[in-house]
Amino acid sequence: MKIEEKLGLKIKQLRNEIGISQEELAYRCDLHRTYISSVELGKRNISIRNIEKIALALNVEIIELFKKGTIDGN
Amino acid sequence: MKIEEKLGLKIKQLRNEIGISQEELAYRCDLHRTYISSVELGKRNISIRNIEKIALALNVEIIELFKKGTIDGN
Repeated sequence: MKIEEKLGLKIKQLRNEIGISQEELAYRCDLHRTYISSVELGKRNISIRNIEKIALALNVEIIELFKKGTIDGN
Repeated sequence: MKIEEKLGLKIKQLRNEIGISQEELAYRCDLHRTYISSVELGKRNISIRNIEKIALALNVEIIELFKKGTIDGN
């Protein structure tokens, strides 16, 4: 699995854990919902600043986004 | 300190720990030395794929790049 796919799954997992929609996450990040969708699908070579924005919006440290163990076991 | 500056310092720290030059790191990543230099200076909004390349070249997990505690205490 590619790094951007692992990261996307983790973002999706954390977003689901706090029970917010892609739209709400996008709003909190000041990014577009379709961008969040493509990030979660692992289709974006996301930059560190956008990774930071998403971490802040999910209320986690960036390091949490790179810890092993998603709902898919990766 | 901006996230890209923290990341740059950590990369520099880890590179120095294994005793390789920016040029050697660049070679291992298949990136340009001037790009590595600007990343270490926190001047690049680096993408996840390049972060992964650098982590691999430094022989660390990506998560190591986001752990707190650099030679500068950040």
